[in-house]
Amino acid sequence: MTAGGERPAPETEGIVVTSRVRLARNIEGFPFPGWSRKPERLRVLEKILPTVEALPEMKGGASHAMDALAALDKQVLVEKHLISREHAGKNVGSAVVINRSETLAVMLNEEDHLRMQAIRPGFCLEKVYALVNEADTRLEEALPFAFSSKLGYLTACPTNVGTGMRASAMLHLPALVLADHMSKIISAVNKLGLAVRGLYGEGTEALGNLFQISNQMTLGEREADILGRLKNVVSEIARHEINARATLLEKSPRMLYDHIGRAYGVLAHARVISSKEGMNLLSMIHLGVALGAFGRLAAEDVDRLFMETQPAHLQRGRGRSRLSAEERDALRADLIRSVVGRGEPPKLDIPPPTGESPKTT
Amino acid sequence: MTAGGERPAPETEGIVVTSRVRLARNIEGFPFPGWSRKPERLRVLEKILPTVEALPEMKGGASHAMDALAALDKQVLVEKHLISREHAGKNVGSAVVINRSETLAVMLNEEDHLRMQAIRPGFCLEKVYALVNEADTRLEEALPFAFSSKLGYLTACPTNVGTGMRASAMLHLPALVLADHMSKIISAVNKLGLAVRGLYGEGTEALGNLFQISNQMTLGEREADILGRLKNVVSEIARHEINARATLLEKSPRMLYDHIGRAYGVLAHARVISSKEGMNLLSMIHLGVALGAFGRLAAEDVDRLFMETQPAHLQRGRGRSRLSAEERDALRADLIRSVVGRGEPPKLDIPPPTGESPKTT
Repeated sequence: MTAGGERPAPETEGIVVTSRVRLARNIEGFPFPGWSRKPERLRVLEKILPTVEALPEMKGGASHAMDALAALDKQVLVEKHLISREHAGKNVGSAVVINRSETLAVMLNEEDHLRMQAIRPGFCLEKVYALVNEADTRLEEALPFAFSSKLGYLTACPTNVGTGMRASAMLHLPALVLADHMSKIISAVNKLGLAVRGLYGEGTEALGNLFQISNQMTLGEREADILGRLKNVVSEIARHEINARATLLEKSPRMLYDHIGRAYGVLAHARVISSKEGMNLLSMIHLGVALGAFGRLAAEDVDRLFMETQPAHLQRGRGRSRLSAEERDALRADLIRSVVGRGEPPKLDIPPPTGESPKTT
Repeated sequence: MTAGGERPAPETEGIVVTSRVRLARNIEGFPFPGWSRKPERLRVLEKILPTVEALPEMKGGASHAMDALAALDKQVLVEKHLISREHAGKNVGSAVVINRSETLAVMLNEEDHLRMQAIRPGFCLEKVYALVNEADTRLEEALPFAFSSKLGYLTACPTNVGTGMRASAMLHLPALVLADHMSKIISAVNKLGLAVRGLYGEGTEALGNLFQISNQMTLGEREADILGRLKNVVSEIARHEINARATLLEKSPRMLYDHIGRAYGVLAHARVISSKEGMNLLSMIHLGVALGAFGRLAAEDVDRLFMETQPAHLQRGRGRSRLSAEERDALRADLIRSVVGRGEPPKLDIPPPTGESPKTT
């Protein structure tokens, strides 16, 4: 396995937004959560929750019974990618434990008894794997995981049997979308046994030009091989994005500037912005920042806005009365305008890159 | 006839964009242009062209045989509303004579032998009628107009028989469009025997929120009565527009500011703008100027841009090679950006009007 040893290219910065690995585990002798009744789910929870909470990684972290969390708080966790949309729908008998830095989250009684994930900004699949693997090893010492020497870890859904691992990277691919190359790339990636999904996982739209690439198979392959292959493909896609940016700058600068200019113009002056429009336009600002078009605006400012303008994040801290969609759209526009409109307009005379190895930063 | 004596309200400024009156006349003993062959059309032209050119109003003006005009020059005249789209399609045997200030234009061998029109900015139907009426009186002294003592002036199409007059006003009605009141108004206006059309007459879209209101009937009513009725209805619609602006400011300021802000943002920062988008967004800037949101931008700047970004106006003066649609869209964006983007962003904290008689200037 040579692939796993490669260092991520520095150009992928800002393109690979986050890296994530999750492991699915179950406890021997208990039915899977989907087949369990409430008393059984509670018994599993009683068995595993203290062990998870006692992990050294979880020191200073937070533990939530899903029935004790308000709908809004659940939604905030979904927007942070700390729990799944499915888990947000769970109630009595389910829980989540999250470490202090919000890089490690263990869902209890989601589809499996345990779904643990590590997530971090940037292109760092091995690092997040190491983090979740360490927690997994500790838990395995204390809990009787359902394991078959022939199949590997047993899971509620056959697609997770084996490693129980789903590794993924979230990529920001605005130039590939503008150049209309994504369907070609998605089909090529699918042929390599990897899945391409939208911002919130399976069946969701690629809002903000964000695409999640993950392994499909969990059986018959070692974790390191899966990670190595994913890493290679993600590097390859990131290189395509870099090339697409260079090509747009060289061949269609006006079209590119038009998208960035319009995004700036609308975000800096609109008074009503939907969540979807906000994400798609912030994506263009992010691209503009990466291309050096914005003097004062930093990529972090855009990332923060992206998160803070999600519906639940917007609602949070606005008192108890639930905001209407119109109120959120107004609040979102005001928030974005106060950040994007504060800076200077983009300087859209970006020179096309020269040489064979274009850099965008 | 008391209606005709009313003074136009000062608030209609900027709402009634132009006033126009055209008269259709034909020469006795010649077939209408649609039934004529080339030699007959040329004979009519020979008979009437020198008389039209000799009008004192036409001193210093221009006279064009339609077959001598390039397609681009014809299109420029259409965009200026000095000839009809139909007349631009004419060739040998048709002509147009235009006075120096481009307020009076006489088309020869359009649908009728003579189509003379006067057009001026603002709400001034009597004034433009007086202008075209004077030319008509002079021509009638020199030419045998086809006239029936029972029906009035005879024309190629029965809908023009009688006065041969079509009087119209072009209205800028962005608030009525935003408030979604236009279909109600159009249906009410139609019931009064008046027609509502788009920017370029019959069957055209109301681009830039511009609507042309004109009389339908030409038979059995005196010119002054037609003008008086049109004037009343136009005043009424303008008042509705003023009220709609006040209501938007009071009830939906954010929606209104959003439209104006977005229009500014896009026009000040886009690099590609289609003719249609340009007109629709400039309409919002015009509204913003009328509401006092723009410090430096004047209504005249917006009007000039509106005309100068029409396709033929854009092409004119760019050399002989015909611009592609893409090149025009780029040129249009650059031109608009250089004017709109030069000024300051709109101050969108317009206070709603107080009292019963809101003023928008």
